[in-house]
Amino acid sequence: MSKFDFLGNERLAKQLDFIVTCDEMKHIIRRTVLMDASRRENDAEHSWHLAMCAMIFEEYAPEKPDMHRVLRLVTVHDLVEIYAGDTFAYDKAGNKTKREREVAAAEKLFGSLPEEQGKMFRELWDEYEAVETPESRYALAMDRIQPLLHNFMTEGFTWKEGAVHASWVLERIDCVKQAVPEVYDAITKIIEKSVENGILME
Amino acid sequence: MSKFDFLGNERLAKQLDFIVTCDEMKHIIRRTVLMDASRRENDAEHSWHLAMCAMIFEEYAPEKPDMHRVLRLVTVHDLVEIYAGDTFAYDKAGNKTKREREVAAAEKLFGSLPEEQGKMFRELWDEYEAVETPESRYALAMDRIQPLLHNFMTEGFTWKEGAVHASWVLERIDCVKQAVPEVYDAITKIIEKSVENGILME
Repeated sequence: MSKFDFLGNERLAKQLDFIVTCDEMKHIIRRTVLMDASRRENDAEHSWHLAMCAMIFEEYAPEKPDMHRVLRLVTVHDLVEIYAGDTFAYDKAGNKTKREREVAAAEKLFGSLPEEQGKMFRELWDEYEAVETPESRYALAMDRIQPLLHNFMTEGFTWKEGAVHASWVLERIDCVKQAVPEVYDAITKIIEKSVENGILME
Repeated sequence: MSKFDFLGNERLAKQLDFIVTCDEMKHIIRRTVLMDASRRENDAEHSWHLAMCAMIFEEYAPEKPDMHRVLRLVTVHDLVEIYAGDTFAYDKAGNKTKREREVAAAEKLFGSLPEEQGKMFRELWDEYEAVETPESRYALAMDRIQPLLHNFMTEGFTWKEGAVHASWVLERIDCVKQAVPEVYDAITKIIEKSVENGILME
């Protein structure tokens, strides 16, 4: 049953339903707080912010990723969380079941679209998850840089909450090195400064 | 003064400051309410949702817009609202001063980036505003379709608030006809249905 059955166009009804389902991304709450620490961020906001980061940092990417593909990857990279929920980066138990939950979510979500379109979206998500292409490396780097900037701007809000150590953060941003080396160097300085300022544990 | 002066990299500091400024988009509140009517939508969420719509409807665009350009246009189309604020579609007084406020905002916002990068963003915004290319027509069509779907899903929440007439909505979606004709036909049926259901004034 689609709310759009009255259109008499099954394909378009599926697509409109999908757009309605996407609205759920605005309710998927991440650990990250906004840069004024007023509230937590949701997945729709986060995904948009990654697209902005991608456009800002492209000059620093020696692998010259196809930016069209990158923008598609960041736009869809968290869609499965509509059904699988957000998993905090440093939640060890949650991360054990993450992959299984997200694959089931991908099947349900992308399976609701017209077949070849669902397949196209699934391929984007699979590419992002596999991190084997310059585009997915670059997209993942954005996904690592953006929340780190939020932490830096909020005196380490979620770092403090999770008693996060600098070494964990360094491990997590390792992928940034290959994707945008010059930005990686700056990020390591931001981490050093954060330890210095007592907002991140050594 | 940049929060990132300590990096000793003026260019990157400007770019990081810009990404921080972009966070404000999560505080720019639109009239549109989420599809469960729980709260109003912000510009970051809206911009992300347009990117999703753009990816879903591309098969319906006879002008075959360059989708890479489209994704850039929808990502940046509302950025000036960080300084100019959101103007409700049917707010006659607000729309009289909108252009002037937004041009000043564009100068301030894009002027904060390294020069050639600011110019690149300004060109995107100018193209979106001028609506003279297949890409900007398609992006604008997404900007018209998405809030209409929100209204349909929320029993005409903002339509009722603004005592909006079907003729106003039809006028506003006129641009959808050229960009995605088959979707336009469906949208006119959704408008008819909305009038029929008493959620939109005839």
